[in-house]
Amino acid sequence: MVLALDAMGGDFAPVEVVMGAAAVAGPELAITLTGRGEEIERVLADAEPAARRHISIVEAPETIGFDEEPARAVRAKENSSLVAACREVAEGRADGAVSAGNTGAMLAAAMIKLRRIKGLKRPGLCAVLPTPGRPTVFIDVGANAEVRPVHLLEFANMASIFAGEVLEVKNPTVGLVSIGEESVKGNELVLEAHRLMAASPQLNFYGNVEGRDIVRNVVDVVVTDGFTGNVCLKLMESTSSLIVEEVKKAARRSLLAKIGGALLKRELNDFRKSIDTEEFGGAYLLGVRGLVVVCHGNSSRKAIASALGYAARASRQNLTGKLQERIAGLAAQPAKAGDR
Amino acid sequence: MVLALDAMGGDFAPVEVVMGAAAVAGPELAITLTGRGEEIERVLADAEPAARRHISIVEAPETIGFDEEPARAVRAKENSSLVAACREVAEGRADGAVSAGNTGAMLAAAMIKLRRIKGLKRPGLCAVLPTPGRPTVFIDVGANAEVRPVHLLEFANMASIFAGEVLEVKNPTVGLVSIGEESVKGNELVLEAHRLMAASPQLNFYGNVEGRDIVRNVVDVVVTDGFTGNVCLKLMESTSSLIVEEVKKAARRSLLAKIGGALLKRELNDFRKSIDTEEFGGAYLLGVRGLVVVCHGNSSRKAIASALGYAARASRQNLTGKLQERIAGLAAQPAKAGDR
Repeated sequence: MVLALDAMGGDFAPVEVVMGAAAVAGPELAITLTGRGEEIERVLADAEPAARRHISIVEAPETIGFDEEPARAVRAKENSSLVAACREVAEGRADGAVSAGNTGAMLAAAMIKLRRIKGLKRPGLCAVLPTPGRPTVFIDVGANAEVRPVHLLEFANMASIFAGEVLEVKNPTVGLVSIGEESVKGNELVLEAHRLMAASPQLNFYGNVEGRDIVRNVVDVVVTDGFTGNVCLKLMESTSSLIVEEVKKAARRSLLAKIGGALLKRELNDFRKSIDTEEFGGAYLLGVRGLVVVCHGNSSRKAIASALGYAARASRQNLTGKLQERIAGLAAQPAKAGDR
Repeated sequence: MVLALDAMGGDFAPVEVVMGAAAVAGPELAITLTGRGEEIERVLADAEPAARRHISIVEAPETIGFDEEPARAVRAKENSSLVAACREVAEGRADGAVSAGNTGAMLAAAMIKLRRIKGLKRPGLCAVLPTPGRPTVFIDVGANAEVRPVHLLEFANMASIFAGEVLEVKNPTVGLVSIGEESVKGNELVLEAHRLMAASPQLNFYGNVEGRDIVRNVVDVVVTDGFTGNVCLKLMESTSSLIVEEVKKAARRSLLAKIGGALLKRELNDFRKSIDTEEFGGAYLLGVRGLVVVCHGNSSRKAIASALGYAARASRQNLTGKLQERIAGLAAQPAKAGDR
């Protein structure tokens, strides 16, 4: 198995990215680093020689910055490390592409180079939330600012396959984000999507879930449009880090509190790790012909290694093939009202 | 000044509601309790006799449950405590109405009994988020599942007036929720609303804000549609209470951690109070002809008292009159493309 990794993408590239690759490369997983070979080699000099043998480099001198307009940058920079990683997959030399660079650019490159799965209307970006107890799959976290009901049905089906194959959840339950649990609650988009999802024989549809349920393990898969999903994902991350910061501040406020904080340190650190978004490494673009993973811009080597590990597992499970089967099954169903 | 309070609305009604009223009733603030007089009197027997003199009761034998369909319940139950509270305002006997009952029913009753401010298209429900440092006004948190750009412009203007008059924020900054800071990021609704808000001379418009910014005091007023706002509000509450629970669990995990937790207790409690949604007592329906406040179903007497205090302040500042002036000013501006 080979994964292509954009060595120049991310706030801490190339060092953290390359070292993340070195941490997982081995006889079972070869990594192709795309980027400026000389810089990559300098980082690899510090890596385990054993790992080095399973890493190859594809020269790609250009880079795409975080501020660049995605579609334009992708078209203009064929020789960028990000586009090169997608090209490795498109041309069959790699099983998946991973980048911690410009998310929009990675989505655009994946759409252009890998194209959609046959019969699918819209790929969706799915994140794995580190909710206590067990993780929650959340789709769409930003690939589609504007969606129609049938897109939500597609997201639900793809994320169910992802939860089953990659997280090993059996017959995952699926919830649709709305502003009330009853099927009559929500906006027009959600009311129609609810009908489609309830009528879909492939889905284990739970019904509507509310904002509070997203982090409460009410369902295994939470489905929403890319606008709401993106706002929610960023809000969750910000709220939890804010609270952890405030608890830390509280633990500096007096001498007794400082001692208390010191005694609690191990448990608090364990807890912080358990809600660490790095654990699952990235977000998965479901619905293109190949595995595509986008990592947080601030990814550490640990996050990159974790993303590569999950991508390898997804590839071993033939995630893309199973998504294709499910989408073909959806497309074979008779069209219903609103199913457009 | 007189405020009408739905004595039967809320999980802990009538006891907590009535005791909340008794905590603030006095020569400067009379309270009219609507509900079943006998039950109310039984609770009032435990209240300060001094407060009792400033409390009157309007008999309203019916109640509206949390599960009832709002509009239908309001029309069917003219003699409910919730509708009676709105009627006190509509008929000029009270300056504002407060309920911890069925939120949808309270919104429906307010719309039917009090009607919209002249020239306004849509009232919006605004919450005050207890963000660290200073509070954030968040609108719409659920009155409108489906909105048009001009509704967001109205929300922005009304919430700015609210922040200025009730929270005493000078020239409040206003942010529009989107999935990127640039004005070209978002869905069609947000792109057009951004243009309207940027062109509105009355607003101190900051531009787009992202999900993460909502809790970070980036702006004083955060504007979004009622679907996104409702999901975000519930997600924030759930995420923060989840993290506080997990920190508490961590502090029970070992003997040292228990000692640490005990030493930290005061600081953690102070922190919990600082993010307590009870502090601001409720959400404010802006845009009807009278003050209307809806409280959390689980409101304690403290939350009710706080809501009454803020409502009294809003009434003293003539919030409704100032909203009417602003809306008249908006309506007087020439119509623009998309301003419909």
